[in-house]
Amino acid sequence: MDDKKQMKLGLLLNAVGFHIAAWRHPDARPDLASRLERYIDITQTAERGKFDLVFLADSAAMHHSHNYEVMAKMSPFYQMEPVSLLSALAPVTERIGLVGSITTTYNEPFHIARKMATLDHVSDGRAGWNLVTSANQAEAYNFSRDAHMDHADRYGRAVEVAEIVRGLWDSWEDDALLFDKESGQYFDLDKMHPLNHVGERFSVRGPLNVFRSPQGHPVIAQAGSSEPGKELAAETADIVFTQQLTLENGKAFYADLKSRMAKFGRSPDELKVMPGVVPFVADSREEAEADFQAMQELILPEVGLALLQELLGGVDLSGYDLDGPMPELTATNAGKGRLQNLTELAKRDNLTIRQLYQHAAGSRGHWMLKGTAEQIADTLETWIQEEAADGFVVIPPYLPGTIDRFVDKVVPELQRRGLFREDYEGQTLRDHLGLARPVYTSA
Amino acid sequence: MDDKKQMKLGLLLNAVGFHIAAWRHPDARPDLASRLERYIDITQTAERGKFDLVFLADSAAMHHSHNYEVMAKMSPFYQMEPVSLLSALAPVTERIGLVGSITTTYNEPFHIARKMATLDHVSDGRAGWNLVTSANQAEAYNFSRDAHMDHADRYGRAVEVAEIVRGLWDSWEDDALLFDKESGQYFDLDKMHPLNHVGERFSVRGPLNVFRSPQGHPVIAQAGSSEPGKELAAETADIVFTQQLTLENGKAFYADLKSRMAKFGRSPDELKVMPGVVPFVADSREEAEADFQAMQELILPEVGLALLQELLGGVDLSGYDLDGPMPELTATNAGKGRLQNLTELAKRDNLTIRQLYQHAAGSRGHWMLKGTAEQIADTLETWIQEEAADGFVVIPPYLPGTIDRFVDKVVPELQRRGLFREDYEGQTLRDHLGLARPVYTSA
Repeated sequence: MDDKKQMKLGLLLNAVGFHIAAWRHPDARPDLASRLERYIDITQTAERGKFDLVFLADSAAMHHSHNYEVMAKMSPFYQMEPVSLLSALAPVTERIGLVGSITTTYNEPFHIARKMATLDHVSDGRAGWNLVTSANQAEAYNFSRDAHMDHADRYGRAVEVAEIVRGLWDSWEDDALLFDKESGQYFDLDKMHPLNHVGERFSVRGPLNVFRSPQGHPVIAQAGSSEPGKELAAETADIVFTQQLTLENGKAFYADLKSRMAKFGRSPDELKVMPGVVPFVADSREEAEADFQAMQELILPEVGLALLQELLGGVDLSGYDLDGPMPELTATNAGKGRLQNLTELAKRDNLTIRQLYQHAAGSRGHWMLKGTAEQIADTLETWIQEEAADGFVVIPPYLPGTIDRFVDKVVPELQRRGLFREDYEGQTLRDHLGLARPVYTSA
Repeated sequence: MDDKKQMKLGLLLNAVGFHIAAWRHPDARPDLASRLERYIDITQTAERGKFDLVFLADSAAMHHSHNYEVMAKMSPFYQMEPVSLLSALAPVTERIGLVGSITTTYNEPFHIARKMATLDHVSDGRAGWNLVTSANQAEAYNFSRDAHMDHADRYGRAVEVAEIVRGLWDSWEDDALLFDKESGQYFDLDKMHPLNHVGERFSVRGPLNVFRSPQGHPVIAQAGSSEPGKELAAETADIVFTQQLTLENGKAFYADLKSRMAKFGRSPDELKVMPGVVPFVADSREEAEADFQAMQELILPEVGLALLQELLGGVDLSGYDLDGPMPELTATNAGKGRLQNLTELAKRDNLTIRQLYQHAAGSRGHWMLKGTAEQIADTLETWIQEEAADGFVVIPPYLPGTIDRFVDKVVPELQRRGLFREDYEGQTLRDHLGLARPVYTSA
């Protein structure tokens, strides 16, 4: 058992859960959605379960939907600014990694590098940056733009931002600080390295005004599944969060991504592929299915349809029969991976629009697992053994029930099988993930 | 005694103190300058002293100086990103206000509004935004600019940013949230108000994707002493941090600022004027003076001169005799208030360049008080009675000694005189400052 490869586990964090009707669940407390203590409770549950990390997705706009009437019936998934919220979780947690999204599309690279270095200091080495680009129109309107940049332009900017942020994290060598009170030398000037970046979109001199942080470089996560997204991840990502709905697709994605790394001088182990999984855990498969169906019944039709349209990149399905087949769609400006996954699923299972929005609303386009702890552990074990995943991001459909049950039932089962740690072995997020700390000394 | 006007107290926060040689003090721990526990200790000391707030100044660049050789001998005053650091202090403090600088020159208003609303939520109503503009060249270089904007342009941008941020904080009425699980209505659409701002520099649709925060509007602090700075403060600031070196100047500034408020429909009590004060407290005036002189002896000449040049907005004094008089300077692009204060002081006291840099290095251009707790309380009382101040921002020259002594000796003396609270009466920073919460309901 001991030589089994252990999986990594992350928790996608919010206050009520990610099912579109999560806030209507009888146990849900939407009134606590802006309360720090709620986030502390959930994060401490994940830390009790020895999770590698919690992860805050983000959107710098109220909702993706342009339909305000529908918006008023949806629970807002992303609210508080991720780095500020994760910083507030740092002093009340000990080991769990704190990963937050910051979009490269509407942020200056200096601010990104600085916030993440700060989070890494205040958390004693547990910070991670989820590098994303912004794909929705509502965000553009909040940043003095009429429209979002096209996909290629967004990725071009993301690539340059990633280069600058990583360069700024190398402003200071590990042993740059002297604190020599006698001579008055605070740091060794030879170990300070201004960046002097001059690129297509940015000029950034540096150095970063935060000294080298505990992890050297905070962990970088990404989620892109487009060609440029996979290239950027193969070059720069430590973690890839991904949507994979079948073992076959998962294996193909995993092999594809890892095979791209060699040309950047990286070994496959230096990147952890973590598909999202939406778990409904119960004492029997029937109970898990009933738990899921109870959630599905809470979906208002107008909300489900709006979510589907959003996941498909803003397409308008209002002219179609809800109980008829999905129309043919072409790739839009939205995330191309989601579009492909959902349209393939609709074709494969011959789903109506209503059935597809019910599916999407239940899982938000992610892979769903319903069953006992043993059944879910079986499936996760298969994905690890078959090289479809290095770990998983647990996306709790409603809270706190679904994370409580995952931690209390699935985690012990994984531990029994030698598939997951019994306790944290190290302090930093890099330690948990088995990633080396980038050391930087010229001496 | 009970009808005396009570003063407000803030603490300018960093890890080693604000004297230019603070890190060389025998008790200083520059090795802890990036450690959260150091900031927690100092903030908890201020909270034990019932301070209204701690305050993080900021610069989005390593140093103001262009002279790297000198930079390597100075302790960096501002390092970690303020809002992230203040968020990390929120769960380990109870009542003290958390005020941080965010420059309007290099930040998007949507991000500012969102970060501050987040800090207000995680701190349960203790957030404050210090609205500043960026005056130093080194920041421009980190944000793809060859030079910083001129003074008028920076203020034009600041005025528009302030309007947008306050508008975004009014995205949601106080009673907008319904959480009606039965009907599926999460919020009342009639109580959501997109901003739809279209101005000279920004277009921001909104609404903010953070619901209305505990204070309604986080507190706004400012420091501008220029004409446009005073106008903006009279219209929008709740607190003004200011540099005043004499009672006469303090009274004039106080009267000037308060007299500008009526035309914006505000009463003078709605803005608290808080000059900075650098305290050396001891059991006798002689001991306090000796404590100060011991710090002065730690100043390296090249460091003192560089700081003076920075405070004067980047002038070059290298061609002048250090023991000769200050040359005539004209207002540059830098903060005009500082230039005026320092050059007036040099003239009044007939100071050489060396004497002026020693003064500036000791106090960083702020007002210094050396003496016993009683003597310092006398002076502070006079400033309150004479309407030169509503309170003070304590700028500790070195840490932790000078804040420990202020809290243990000066605060009890102020309390004995009825000049300062015995304990917090309310929960929010607005409560401490005696400022009403902006209520927003259309019903």
